[in-house]
Amino acid sequence: MTSTLAPPPLRWDGERLHVLDQTRLPAHEEMLVLEGAEDTARAIERLSVRGAPLIGVAAGFGLAMEVAREPSLGALERGAERLATCRPTARNLAWAVERVRAAALAAGPVRMAAAARAAAEAIQRDDEAASAALADHGAALLEAALPRDPAAADPITILTHCNSGCLAASGRGTGLGVIAALADRRPVRVLACEARPLLQGARLTVWELKRLGIEHALAVDAAAAGLIRTGQVDAVVTGFDRVAANGDVANKVGTYGLALAAHAAGIPFVAAGPSSSIDRALPAGDVIEIEERGPEEVRTAGGALLTVPGTAVRNPAFDVTPAALVWALVTERGVARPVDPAAVAAVA
Amino acid sequence: MTSTLAPPPLRWDGERLHVLDQTRLPAHEEMLVLEGAEDTARAIERLSVRGAPLIGVAAGFGLAMEVAREPSLGALERGAERLATCRPTARNLAWAVERVRAAALAAGPVRMAAAARAAAEAIQRDDEAASAALADHGAALLEAALPRDPAAADPITILTHCNSGCLAASGRGTGLGVIAALADRRPVRVLACEARPLLQGARLTVWELKRLGIEHALAVDAAAAGLIRTGQVDAVVTGFDRVAANGDVANKVGTYGLALAAHAAGIPFVAAGPSSSIDRALPAGDVIEIEERGPEEVRTAGGALLTVPGTAVRNPAFDVTPAALVWALVTERGVARPVDPAAVAAVA
Repeated sequence: MTSTLAPPPLRWDGERLHVLDQTRLPAHEEMLVLEGAEDTARAIERLSVRGAPLIGVAAGFGLAMEVAREPSLGALERGAERLATCRPTARNLAWAVERVRAAALAAGPVRMAAAARAAAEAIQRDDEAASAALADHGAALLEAALPRDPAAADPITILTHCNSGCLAASGRGTGLGVIAALADRRPVRVLACEARPLLQGARLTVWELKRLGIEHALAVDAAAAGLIRTGQVDAVVTGFDRVAANGDVANKVGTYGLALAAHAAGIPFVAAGPSSSIDRALPAGDVIEIEERGPEEVRTAGGALLTVPGTAVRNPAFDVTPAALVWALVTERGVARPVDPAAVAAVA
Repeated sequence: MTSTLAPPPLRWDGERLHVLDQTRLPAHEEMLVLEGAEDTARAIERLSVRGAPLIGVAAGFGLAMEVAREPSLGALERGAERLATCRPTARNLAWAVERVRAAALAAGPVRMAAAARAAAEAIQRDDEAASAALADHGAALLEAALPRDPAAADPITILTHCNSGCLAASGRGTGLGVIAALADRRPVRVLACEARPLLQGARLTVWELKRLGIEHALAVDAAAAGLIRTGQVDAVVTGFDRVAANGDVANKVGTYGLALAAHAAGIPFVAAGPSSSIDRALPAGDVIEIEERGPEEVRTAGGALLTVPGTAVRNPAFDVTPAALVWALVTERGVARPVDPAAVAAVA
């Protein structure tokens, strides 16, 4: 059984893009209507639309809408520049924008709008197919790695971080898509890290898991390593925002600490996402630009001030996990394990 | 120069105990007046008074006040039981209660109240002396381990977790006392982890650092490992709640993850506290009882609901760091390094 959300968090009506405003979840389920490059870029910047694959899909439609309004080379280049640079870390944004831009350029001025729209729609179709395929690969891998004890009635416990479900990618998502596919095969309990500062775990993953009917509990990010060390977690599964050619993984800040703890405890750390997040031009993770976001995100939570007003803040939104700590990298093309440059190339 | 707070966060007037209500910081600086075992136990349970050494000091006075009101064996035993068990993980609570109880029992019914009071006052004096001595040991150790580059104008960066300053122990505190003593010797910048769920880092450590005039920035707990990995931290320094005979350290949840990251990056992880936190009767850390607190702490922050109402929660308040990851253990008796049972015994 494949569970999906109705309405989906991102819907293209042929002319405009409807997105669920993720900053308002879980208390409010409100759709935004986007009409061009600028409002799509702003929705991505403020995280109304988020998740590496989903911002790629949204940016593709944003550029297609822009050239539908003004089918000119100037509008195409201005829109592409605006969208490709509105967030720096996830690869999918620049990748999707370039795919739509190249299609529009190749089509020429008269057919530019139609070509851009077709390219954006293809990105969404491909992303949905990638989600479905990678979920199957990941679930099969984990089912084999975590053999069922017939005597044990307990579900296995998968820890995840941030949100990598249907709110982060097409279809069922990436990391959470793997977990949902595994839950189709055997009893699973999910431990969701809250993902401070913006609480995508507490707000979004919990909301998805409740709708999916998968048993879950929420924990603060700092609790994860100790729960892993004491045998309370069977595997860690996340998405990814950008993967370098050597297999280093950039993902939501905190992922590196989870990977370290999983490695120390000898449990699998699986990072799952579409091959469009893999950047083969990048030799290693340490050259990935890490977005540093504003201080108010850390000084507050849910609108409440948590610290002394004006306190200086460090707020990197991502971190890099070295390939040596990644037990498996999963894309729609298969599984890379162990993660080395040759294995990454095979799934990129 | 030794910076201290006025008024101090815990003050004994000879009859009653005045404590700063730490749940209200940093927005409100309000003193509570405690008069017996029950209200002292409640103040400890709700974390109005917190920090392993400080709850030991408070519990000692709580029992002394109880037997001053009713100098009987029954009141002594009931008060001791109530106070010793109100939180499970820090060693100091049961240790301080037993020290006051033993003094009262030895003195007999007529001199019980005076003996209990003298014992409680001695605990506070000893804790203040321990804070001063361990801060000197720790600062000297770090000054030697992190040699100053004469060409570099930059301060060194010490990451700390939760709160281990004057709000957690007598005098300048434990981990934060070491950092303050180091800041007397050379320029120091502190990176404070927020310590979700109750944000003792964001609320208390930032408040102390601002008063101490030490440069600082706040980060979410999940950001720490990545900042350590990328060379942005020179050492990690925390307090401790209980240390086993083999050197395993129980401290605020998240400490284990910081120790793992420090070890992987090859930087010092220093855990500092009074010898009264060392439990030589305990062979290893994994038998330390880890307090699991209520779900609302995780579902909310600063009064704001962060997740789907009623979401199940895991909320361990502490974790255990194996001795092998502890670069140095510092008490008022000196430095244990490397941390093995013989070294621990020498500083316990």
